Amino acid sequence: MEHVTGRWGALAMVALLDGTTRFNALRRRVDGISEKMLSQTLHALERDGLVLREAKPTIPPHVEYSLTPLGRDVAGKLLDFIQLLESRMPEVMTAREEYDAR
Amino acid sequence: MEHVTGRWGALAMVALLDGTTRFNALRRRVDGISEKMLSQTLHALERDGLVLREAKPTIPPHVEYSLTPLGRDVAGKLLDFIQLLESRMPEVMTAREEYDAR
Repeated sequence: MEHVTGRWGALAMVALLDGTTRFNALRRRVDGISEKMLSQTLHALERDGLVLREAKPTIPPHVEYSLTPLGRDVAGKLLDFIQLLESRMPEVMTAREEYDAR
Repeated sequence: MEHVTGRWGALAMVALLDGTTRFNALRRRVDGISEKMLSQTLHALERDGLVLREAKPTIPPHVEYSLTPLGRDVAGKLLDFIQLLESRMPEVMTAREEYDAR
């Protein structure tokens, strides 16, 4: 499941934890992702049953993405892990400085 | 922190959750990793303060690796995530079959 654990899949899923999002809005939330890469990432996540894609019959038509219940569980655990890493980054930075000063 | 979230870093850290391990034993636990890649991975994890490297003055000398307290926290959360993914894989496989049958 490289597309879940990879950078773009992880970021897209965590962004979708905030709720249903259109493609372009999602692209703005996932900093640095290309249109093509986001499209491929969302297709892979949809195929895995983690993301739901809904084409709305509005004028103009638009497409919305949301997490499935399964996707919500996976994204929640992923966010736990990311938040732990973020909270411990000062310790990591200190360790790196000490290592590099040896 | 690509080496933590990447395949090899993640597998090495989870393997070290079982306790202090020598290089060659660790290599057997991390299926498919090359000697060079494991060496690089362990150096990066050591620099981040996640893994402790200890050269034992035995005859013949050998090197042991273990998780630091910080590494144990990170690896624990990582294992949570991996175990969730594993437990939900049957649902993912079903979703893929349904998607591919469309």
